[in-house]
Formats: sequence, structure tokens, C-alpha cells
Amino acid sequence: MASESAPARYPAAALRAFTAAVLERDDLPPADAARVAELMIEADLSGQDGHGIFLLLQYVRRIRGGAVNVRPRIRVEESGPGTALVDGENGMGHLVLTRAVETATAPARAAGGARVGVRASNHAGPAALYASMPVAHDMIGIYAAVANAYHLAPWGGQELLLGTNPLAMAVPTAAAPPPVLDMATTVVSYGTIKKYVQRGESIPLGWVTNAAGKAITDPAHASEGFLPPVGAYKGSGLALMLGLLASVMNGAAFGRDMVDFNVDDHRTTNTGHLLVAVDVARFPPVEAFKREVDRRLRDMRASRRLPRVETIYLPGEQRHTRIQEQTTHGVPLPAALVAELDHLAASVVVAPPAATHAT
Amino acid sequence: MASESAPARYPAAALRAFTAAVLERDDLPPADAARVAELMIEADLSGQDGHGIFLLLQYVRRIRGGAVNVRPRIRVEESGPGTALVDGENGMGHLVLTRAVETATAPARAAGGARVGVRASNHAGPAALYASMPVAHDMIGIYAAVANAYHLAPWGGQELLLGTNPLAMAVPTAAAPPPVLDMATTVVSYGTIKKYVQRGESIPLGWVTNAAGKAITDPAHASEGFLPPVGAYKGSGLALMLGLLASVMNGAAFGRDMVDFNVDDHRTTNTGHLLVAVDVARFPPVEAFKREVDRRLRDMRASRRLPRVETIYLPGEQRHTRIQEQTTHGVPLPAALVAELDHLAASVVVAPPAATHAT
Repeated sequence: MASESAPARYPAAALRAFTAAVLERDDLPPADAARVAELMIEADLSGQDGHGIFLLLQYVRRIRGGAVNVRPRIRVEESGPGTALVDGENGMGHLVLTRAVETATAPARAAGGARVGVRASNHAGPAALYASMPVAHDMIGIYAAVANAYHLAPWGGQELLLGTNPLAMAVPTAAAPPPVLDMATTVVSYGTIKKYVQRGESIPLGWVTNAAGKAITDPAHASEGFLPPVGAYKGSGLALMLGLLASVMNGAAFGRDMVDFNVDDHRTTNTGHLLVAVDVARFPPVEAFKREVDRRLRDMRASRRLPRVETIYLPGEQRHTRIQEQTTHGVPLPAALVAELDHLAASVVVAPPAATHAT
Repeated sequence: MASESAPARYPAAALRAFTAAVLERDDLPPADAARVAELMIEADLSGQDGHGIFLLLQYVRRIRGGAVNVRPRIRVEESGPGTALVDGENGMGHLVLTRAVETATAPARAAGGARVGVRASNHAGPAALYASMPVAHDMIGIYAAVANAYHLAPWGGQELLLGTNPLAMAVPTAAAPPPVLDMATTVVSYGTIKKYVQRGESIPLGWVTNAAGKAITDPAHASEGFLPPVGAYKGSGLALMLGLLASVMNGAAFGRDMVDFNVDDHRTTNTGHLLVAVDVARFPPVEAFKREVDRRLRDMRASRRLPRVETIYLPGEQRHTRIQEQTTHGVPLPAALVAELDHLAASVVVAPPAATHAT
């Protein structure tokens, strides 16, 4: 692996193969390793790279520390025409959620919508991945999760009892890229902060603060900070409510019971997720709905822009463009990450991926 | 009606009776008038007074202008075990949503959850009202709506194609007040702005801006402004997605089709709502879940506070306290509103409500 100061680009296929090989070495069954790798690299392709191959070393550390079960027997308990509870038996979150989405589709078709609660899962990468999956079935996807770290206090408090609990939604379209909203309930996600820390870059104002609300910009001190909620009390309230829905209702960890997967390589997180699939066809005919969504998005996109704004990007559009661009031209990996992956490759006796071309 | 400069207090019962009498004069059937009045005054009691009796004159204007149907035959089309579409036939939103909540309960019990889409409705007051209703059935309530006014541009744009589209959620508890989140996707709701306008008070910085992002504080110019989205692109994206779910999916108005009910007394709004009821009992036993929610809320409330913060209020707690306090001591109405209601009372030959006591 090269390590120029300008980031080299790597073909997605090479990154997938490398990631899967590493995970196989750490005892994931080949099909499971391939699935986790596929979703991790999809995160990289989409630009949500704080949730992609960047996390491989951390995942491996936790697998080796006994914190994650590499051979889970994921259990599904269907509790009604439109509901199911998935117990991930502490498997990789990507696998547990893949199962949750599969579980949701048939009941959503039968009942008009389905809600799948998840417990005993793990970190699963970006929320957009899972909200997007029902879209292939002409369903709206909604996803929420309890983040595996303490970053947020109840509004007015200074104890970090909440995570950056994200919310994502995706809607089917006819021809336009499906709109995908993926928002942490903090100003930015901690995955984004971790990228700055790894690169030793100064953190932008307002992303991390101390308890008194004063900005922390030094990456060496980022882990001591608070992540301010988006929209002040609104983001804090939303993080709380999403936690009750995605976690407490499913018997997953919340509040003081959470385990911070950034600092703990041994304990299970009992991560909770919520996945909802909504069958569009119950009200309007699917094709009519999708065309109507396209028309509405087109209208927004073509509306009058602010001065100095060249393009109005709707939720998920930049993600869509980035996936196409990076699938063709490769995923840029910063030098610090390449060095870390080289080291990991050597330790597990796997060939590191080769860059397509340096830029 | 008195009109001191310090706001007089009015018993909720008197305000309900007055509101119902006015609506009856304008041809709502007595039971419908009473129901609308009940929900409007509940908004006042909870402190969401930009959505309460404050709106009575505006509602009456629109009824008289032929914009609202006072004798709707609300139609329910059940389209699956867990879905239904309610066509409000342009009735008052409060009535249409009351019907939507009633419609949701049985299928939610049967399927584990239900989603009711609403079209041909009208402004219905605060989102918290409707998200809270399923809680009495031991269900989680989720509500979203397309607001009846243009206040928000797609991110990067300067055409107001979006409303303040709110999201609300409420969760059952054992003994604690149920947590209720009610958030506009803008920094504040337009109902809040309108209160400042009516009182002629200067608008706080950051609540209304011009297209260039410069604050508008003069109440006389508030209606020309933008309401900035909460969390910048996140709030704008959320407003868009909620609009697709609450409106486009139900065949209700969205984007350029919206009618601004603040300035138009004649045209129908075709307002869209989304109401979801989630049956808690599908996963954990209800009582265990409610006790667990109580415990989690207690934990948050008792956590270490920031300096100078006396109480950590969780979502809905201040609302709950205010309802109790104002039910006992009456609802304070500002002088400008009292004058407006006095005038309305005279015009429809209804006795105005009497204040309990001046403060």
C-alpha cells in the first residue's frame, strides 16, 4: 500500500477483498465476512468514510478482545403481522441488520408496514445503509439506533448519558436518486470526529465542546468532549426519544448501561436498532408515487438558488454522486489510515490492497 | 373580557365554552365544535399557545371564506392490516386527526403497529396533541405533518417550497409524565412568531431571516422572512422527508401546491398528516416497559446538571407541568388577544369568557 501525502485511490473491489480476508482470519464465516466488507466499503464509497474501512482495526480489536461474537445464531421472533424482534446474539451489526431488513420485507408487504426491533447487536456503520435497503422493494425505509458511545448529555445536564443516536429515512423514486436523509442527533457524528483525530487535524468550531460549552479544537482532546446536539434541546430530545424506541423497547442497552465501543475491547454493547419498512403501494400506486416524488424533487432542485450556491443538493444526492464517482475512480484513503491497514495486513498475513493510481 | 397589561387568567372551561360557541355559530355541529374547542384549549393549557385560542379568529375567517368544510363526511379507507388512509373532506384538522387516531388504535393492536395517512385535512394545532393520544392505549405515538405555510427553502435555495413540517413522538410511562417531543423542523414554529407579531414584540435573533440569512427582528416584517431550519441542512432535509411521508404519499399538498392558510381565507389547503401508533406490548410486557422508561427518565433527570441549571427538563415535562398549573389557575391571555376575542364575541353575539382573576 502506498502512502503519499495526497490520498491514493483504491478500487472498491480490492478494499472489499482485503476487508473480507481480514475478517475471515478473525474467524467470521466467509459469507459473513464478505457481507460485512460489502457494507463497510459501501460506506466508504458514499463518503461516510468514518464508518467504513476506517473502523476495520477497531472491529478486529473488539473481535479479538472477545467483545463480538463471530458465529452468532441470529434469532428472529415474529410477534405480530407487522412486528418482529431480532436478537443478534452479539454478532457484527452489519449482519444483524441485514437480517432485520430481510425480516421486515415480507410482513411489510403483508401488513402495509413492518417494524423490526433489534437487540444484542453491534455497531453497524452509517444509518443510510439500512434505511436505503427497503427502497429496492419499493418501500420507504426508516432506521434509528442507539450509538455505541457517550457523547451527549440530557439538555441542561453534564453527564454523557446519550449517544449521537442517528435517524435515517429513504424514499423510492422513479428515475431520480432516492432521497436519503441520514442525520446524527449531534452537530456531527463521532465517526467524523475520529477521522480528524486520526489525521491530527484541528476540529472545526462547534463540533466538540467541553461541559461549559467552550469549543475543543485540539484533536488530542476530542475524546474528552461533548458533541453538542443539533438544534440544542431539540437534538437532545430527539436522541432521547430515538433511544427509547430503538433500544429500551427492544431490551437493548441505554443510558448508563451503554458500553463505549471506542474505548472498550472486551465488553458486549447490546446495541439496539429500529428498522421500519413502509409499503408505499398501500395508498397510491407505486409507480405514480415514485413519479410524483421525482417531480417534487426536480421542483426543489430547480428552484431559485441563493447567491454563490451552484447546485441545490437534496438529501442523499451527494452520497449518490460520490458512490458513482468512487466506484469508477477508487476510494481515497488518507496516509495515516493506509499505514494502519498495512500494519494490520502484516499482522494477519493478508496482502494489503493495491492502489489504482496515486492522485 | 378584561384587558390589563399584565395578562389576565381565564379558566380553561370558560375558554372551551366560548370557543365552542363561536364555532357553533359558524355552523360546526355542536359535538364537533366542542371537540375542536377542547383540543385548541389543550394547546393553550400546555403553553403551545400559538396554536390555541389565538387561532380562533383565523379559523373563523377561513370558515367564513369557504376554505374549510364545517360538515365533512370524513372517509376512512382501510388498505391493510396495519394501514389506513383518512380523507378529511376538508374538515377542521382537529376533527380529522381525532378520527385518524381512532382509526389507528384497533389495527395497531391487531398488527403491532398502524400507520394512518391523512389528506384533505386542515391546520390542527400542535403536533404534541396527536402524538400523545395513542399513549392512553399504551402505544407509542408518532406524528408528522405538512405545515400550511411557506417558510423554508430547500438547503441552498431561496424559494420557500417547504413548511415548518413538525415531528412529534410520545412514549407511555408508568408514573412519570410521558415524554413528548414536539419539534418544528425550523428553529421555532411560525405559531410562535405570530404571537410576537400580535404583541408587536421584537423577534429574537435567529428565528426569522431574510434570504441572505440576515436576522429580521421587526415584527412588522416577520411575514416576509425565512424561518431557518433547525441544524441547517439537517432540518431542511427532515422537512423534505417528512413532507414526502405525511403528504405526497397520501395525495395531500406539498411544495408549490401548498396554500398558505395565514394569508388565504378562501382556498382549501389539502393538508397532509401522518399518524403512527406502535403497540408496545409486542416486544416487552407493557408494564415492564413503562417502568423501564420511568427508570431511564429518572436517571436522566437526576444526572449532574450544568452550572446555573436548576432542573433538567426532559421532553414534555414542562408541558405537563404547565397543563397542571394552568388547569388550576387559568390560562393567561395577552391584552391584544383579549381585544381580538372581545371583538369576535360581539360579532357573533356570544358572551366572551370571564377572567378568573387578574394577575
